[in-house]
Amino acid sequence: MPELRRDPVIGRWVIISTERGKRPSDFGSSKEGEKEGKFCPFCVGNEDKTPPEILSYREPGTEVNKSGWWVRVVPNKFPALQIEGALNRRGEGMYDRMNGIGAHEVIIETPDHDKTIATLDDKKVEDVIWAYRDRILDLKKDARFEYILIFKNHGAAAGASLYHSHSQLIATPVVPKRVKEEVNGGRNYYDYKERCVFCDMVKQELSSDIRVISENEDFIAISPFASRFPFEMWVLPKKHDSAFENIQKHEVVLLSRILKDVLKRINVVLNDPPFNYIIHTAPINTSNLPYYHWHIEIIPKLIKVAGFEWGTGFYINPTPPEEATKYLREAEI
Amino acid sequence: MPELRRDPVIGRWVIISTERGKRPSDFGSSKEGEKEGKFCPFCVGNEDKTPPEILSYREPGTEVNKSGWWVRVVPNKFPALQIEGALNRRGEGMYDRMNGIGAHEVIIETPDHDKTIATLDDKKVEDVIWAYRDRILDLKKDARFEYILIFKNHGAAAGASLYHSHSQLIATPVVPKRVKEEVNGGRNYYDYKERCVFCDMVKQELSSDIRVISENEDFIAISPFASRFPFEMWVLPKKHDSAFENIQKHEVVLLSRILKDVLKRINVVLNDPPFNYIIHTAPINTSNLPYYHWHIEIIPKLIKVAGFEWGTGFYINPTPPEEATKYLREAEI
Repeated sequence: MPELRRDPVIGRWVIISTERGKRPSDFGSSKEGEKEGKFCPFCVGNEDKTPPEILSYREPGTEVNKSGWWVRVVPNKFPALQIEGALNRRGEGMYDRMNGIGAHEVIIETPDHDKTIATLDDKKVEDVIWAYRDRILDLKKDARFEYILIFKNHGAAAGASLYHSHSQLIATPVVPKRVKEEVNGGRNYYDYKERCVFCDMVKQELSSDIRVISENEDFIAISPFASRFPFEMWVLPKKHDSAFENIQKHEVVLLSRILKDVLKRINVVLNDPPFNYIIHTAPINTSNLPYYHWHIEIIPKLIKVAGFEWGTGFYINPTPPEEATKYLREAEI
Repeated sequence: MPELRRDPVIGRWVIISTERGKRPSDFGSSKEGEKEGKFCPFCVGNEDKTPPEILSYREPGTEVNKSGWWVRVVPNKFPALQIEGALNRRGEGMYDRMNGIGAHEVIIETPDHDKTIATLDDKKVEDVIWAYRDRILDLKKDARFEYILIFKNHGAAAGASLYHSHSQLIATPVVPKRVKEEVNGGRNYYDYKERCVFCDMVKQELSSDIRVISENEDFIAISPFASRFPFEMWVLPKKHDSAFENIQKHEVVLLSRILKDVLKRINVVLNDPPFNYIIHTAPINTSNLPYYHWHIEIIPKLIKVAGFEWGTGFYINPTPPEEATKYLREAEI
């Protein structure tokens, strides 16, 4: 059973894989997300090579775990957390731990081995977003969970172990540290200003217009003022809401458009770079926070992050966000 | 002039290199720390290829910026922060920024291209530690600075752009976020327990003895209970002190011994892996904090950290620290 352990100084929870623990000889050769030549369990026709599907959007009349789908959600074959069991919170002297209970799912975004969010049909990208939402709504019913993380690793350098386009979902019994910090930061700003910090950001970015990459009726994509990474991008809904899963139908349409738009832009400007995106949304057991605002952060993986950067939270970004914005805006997509 | 910018939500400061800003075409080919075949500005005889030295330990009678040294500190040729100027703190609507004022120095640890901390003579490693301390004491006099970071990137994958063994020092006009979190975490524990959390950790680890890698009279090296990374190691002084630069002479000797010891151990167990180490010490303008305890964190770079991990502060560690400890303890060094 994997274990969740809490750092006694800063309160960060870490997942420790206690069972299939990696030995020294397991490192070294890095697992690459290969394009060709290898068997792909996410391709159409190989449905029996993944754990049985949890959800699929498929042609009427087709059978589950057979072809006919265009979005398919399955449990991760090598889950970081285990779905069955009780948390069993306990101490070890001064330390805190609990069982590594949680969900770890894979959203296979297309049956086509070579399509990506940037190249899928608009309607298909909308359905990826609907699948994210459907899974959140289902997992929210499980009282053991406090947070649901949705993220994508694209490209081997960004941590993808399979080339075929997919996202991942992890439901956890604790709220990740960074989420807590964002919620607290938003609350502090709200206490002082009585306004949402993200709403203020949307307004200031629209008015100054030096970091806006793209925009539609419901969303803007910006290079954040204090970007940690070159060509970092944030997509924010213009209308305030703390929870991604409250997204309206017209917003699903326009989110899929702007997500495709900005991913096309980095593909043009940075030649199909590896990247990660993460949906930042409120913890499950909160409702309608006036001081938190869901959004998506997209991080192209262009530079090596030295250990000191994640050890100190101090980043050095070689590309000013205003410069990045110029390149991304002018990209012919 | 580089710029420091503050994230308005979580308060993290980021260094933005506004001048030698990287364009999209500058990424792609990664700068590698090469062993051979390239000119090395840190080698003996090439002293005129670095900026003039700030400090050196050298044979009596030898000239500055000439051979005869065994530890040499020079300004970083491509500094992340600039030493001259005023901070000029200012706003841009809701955002905060200041000039990127600070020091960025390189500690060249040996004139020998192929030696490392693990293979240098004991006395020479002591002198590296004395050099760290001398530079901190000097830079503390500059009222513009609030923190002094000392760290090492070893190996290209850990962010080193030169192979020749060296550390870096960055003095900043702000306290890095992670340092604040540690100090606050320590204070919270102290408020509740009236004891230092790190002192408690030292005691519990010594008594349970399942995560102690190495030990001497003044220091212990442990695999932390909530290790973020496989084979992560912390070196802690047994005697409480919040500031590294208060280190006593006998502690310098024993710190150099345990540092060499643990770096030899990861070299044996993990076949000379890339790694980072960072000295975690109290902010400059604090004195003798009862709730903070300096230490060194050492992180072998064995796995790809996916963006979601630094985006969420949520880590998945495939090697339990107790397992890592067994391998490291048994290493024949």
